[in-house]
Amino acid sequence: MLIADAIDSQSAQILAANEVDMKNAAEQGLASAMVDRLCLTPERVKSVSDAVREVAEMPDLIGQEISSITRENGLLVSRVRIPLGVVAMIFESRPNVTSDAAALCLRSCNSVILRGGKEAIHSNLAICTAIRQGLVAAELPADAVQVFQTTDRAALLELLQQDESVDLVIPRGGEGLIRFVAEHSKIPVIMHFKGVCHVYVHEDADLKMACEIAVNAKASRPGVCNSAETILVDSAIAERFVPMLTAAMSCAGVEMRGDEETQKWAQVPVSSANEADWHAEYLDKIVAIRCVSDFDAAVEHIQNYGSNHTEAIITENESVSGQFLSVVHSGTVLVNASTRFADGGQLGLGAEIGISTTKLHAYGPMGAEGLTAVKFVVRGTGQVRK
Amino acid sequence: MLIADAIDSQSAQILAANEVDMKNAAEQGLASAMVDRLCLTPERVKSVSDAVREVAEMPDLIGQEISSITRENGLLVSRVRIPLGVVAMIFESRPNVTSDAAALCLRSCNSVILRGGKEAIHSNLAICTAIRQGLVAAELPADAVQVFQTTDRAALLELLQQDESVDLVIPRGGEGLIRFVAEHSKIPVIMHFKGVCHVYVHEDADLKMACEIAVNAKASRPGVCNSAETILVDSAIAERFVPMLTAAMSCAGVEMRGDEETQKWAQVPVSSANEADWHAEYLDKIVAIRCVSDFDAAVEHIQNYGSNHTEAIITENESVSGQFLSVVHSGTVLVNASTRFADGGQLGLGAEIGISTTKLHAYGPMGAEGLTAVKFVVRGTGQVRK
Repeated sequence: MLIADAIDSQSAQILAANEVDMKNAAEQGLASAMVDRLCLTPERVKSVSDAVREVAEMPDLIGQEISSITRENGLLVSRVRIPLGVVAMIFESRPNVTSDAAALCLRSCNSVILRGGKEAIHSNLAICTAIRQGLVAAELPADAVQVFQTTDRAALLELLQQDESVDLVIPRGGEGLIRFVAEHSKIPVIMHFKGVCHVYVHEDADLKMACEIAVNAKASRPGVCNSAETILVDSAIAERFVPMLTAAMSCAGVEMRGDEETQKWAQVPVSSANEADWHAEYLDKIVAIRCVSDFDAAVEHIQNYGSNHTEAIITENESVSGQFLSVVHSGTVLVNASTRFADGGQLGLGAEIGISTTKLHAYGPMGAEGLTAVKFVVRGTGQVRK
Repeated sequence: MLIADAIDSQSAQILAANEVDMKNAAEQGLASAMVDRLCLTPERVKSVSDAVREVAEMPDLIGQEISSITRENGLLVSRVRIPLGVVAMIFESRPNVTSDAAALCLRSCNSVILRGGKEAIHSNLAICTAIRQGLVAAELPADAVQVFQTTDRAALLELLQQDESVDLVIPRGGEGLIRFVAEHSKIPVIMHFKGVCHVYVHEDADLKMACEIAVNAKASRPGVCNSAETILVDSAIAERFVPMLTAAMSCAGVEMRGDEETQKWAQVPVSSANEADWHAEYLDKIVAIRCVSDFDAAVEHIQNYGSNHTEAIITENESVSGQFLSVVHSGTVLVNASTRFADGGQLGLGAEIGISTTKLHAYGPMGAEGLTAVKFVVRGTGQVRK
């Protein structure tokens, strides 16, 4: 709470620092998706501090007893949450990662080392200064949150060797950064490589709803990982739905790449999609559209090209949606809602420290709970084992 | 259940195969701890099938909804358990690992690849044959459980590169094997390196109980990882307790290595312990004994020399035991009970697939739940994100 207050009270300084980063970004011709991730406004700073406040208000995790049983021999066996220890966050251009990560790590009694990208260094340092002031105000050690003052790779490599003192590394950013960290880290890594998210419009969909969701999933913030990259459409409804969809995408300024069937029904220009488009994470106002023969073909497409991040089905048929939810094992699966909800804050985790597309330890949006472990606590009265 | 029945009905074949392994072990002069792990008796085969039965009777994990909330915008957000996929178990001499691992993997809807040690190859193949017959009887694919027919290292190295098709590797055995797997695996590994477990006898302990627990923790099965290696004794009670402890250990045939204070009060021969003894996982009838000045010194010893496996405190003082349980973050911490209870079966997990001493994903004894992941399932009515 004191950290959120410190961020609010230093909003002007944070925005000024962000302006320096934005100016540098413009000079260096940074891609528009990157610039969107980097940019702070007074409203975004407020949403940064609000996210911290939401984390602060979460119930205590550490020391929580998550189960308790008494065995036949009288042993009382409980499972109790403990912190992981020290978490290192390696990220690129989004300055809100600084505060989200710090808040979540502190809430789960971990300390955190933050290493942001060079394009956001001024913003990150300004946010971190506010956080450390908040820690001091709360009579906690400021060093529980530390930020790298440098963004050179040698220092990062050195950090990734510290498996004796750092318990977990979480990289957030482009695939290049994540593969670099995964390859060089001696410390366990939780990662997502790509967000190739799908919206599958089933033949029993409410087509107006499907159209709204597909456009929202793609166009509301194309630079983030939970935006949709491919829309799958049941052939049975292609003649009715493709014209609606392509018109709406076109209005939203989205460039489209489609298979032959999509091109046939589209009433605005749609270029030809090739194999690479089904694999692509555009992170931009570009979408791939493919018509599929049925449910099984849609699931097969998702299994072949998806990245275990987020997939949505749009249908009014509950038996079909139930089947989708049970056979698609991505980190987040949705029915009749935008893929953009695959986000820790939106799903009730307070804020997220990352989105994992590998199943070990955490899967999907990862909040404070993902920063804890669980130990066994056993209370006896002299029991020995035969 | 059908697998357990198949194991029972092939008990004679399994024991005959085990006899071949035992004969080879004797010829090769295998260490007594290894021979103890390897040896099957009719009773042990029965406990093998009973462990499988206990796992079969566990409630279903997969598809289980572990939480569910409705967000302000009406989204219903649930978290649902899913399998990991394919698990590879790499282990050494204990044939019961074959059946425990297969049962736990199948119970959590994973398939499993088993690679046992060469000293147990005949026992493992016989148990696996029974398991696969059980699978066929249950109309499930026999190949959900596969066993390596070879124990050469090249084949193991090949397996450890298959990160596209295998989701998790769990090595069980000596430190050499575990380090080999951790070093060469491209697949995530859950491991425990060592079980350097402690029993701390606090000054407010019931000394008779403390003595029984210490002897049980060391001597009931010294070759396993949850047996105690070091007994810590508060100096305040050393004069009364060390004579009791050393006499009882001596009766149980345990060789002792102690610090000066222990040697001073011992009434049977205790050799001098050195720094290496505090680090040692003897896996044999040898124990280290050290007198400590107080609670803090005991905790400090555990933090310096422990392996995050299992530690017990013996005390009647509830404030002290509470403090021990909250500051010692080993996978299992106990009060007034033997370290030998740090075992999945004993703690209610049905059976264990391993004991993790690293906090990521699973910590402490790991049962079927450790072989699952949790995905987010979101049900909406057309929600889009602003």
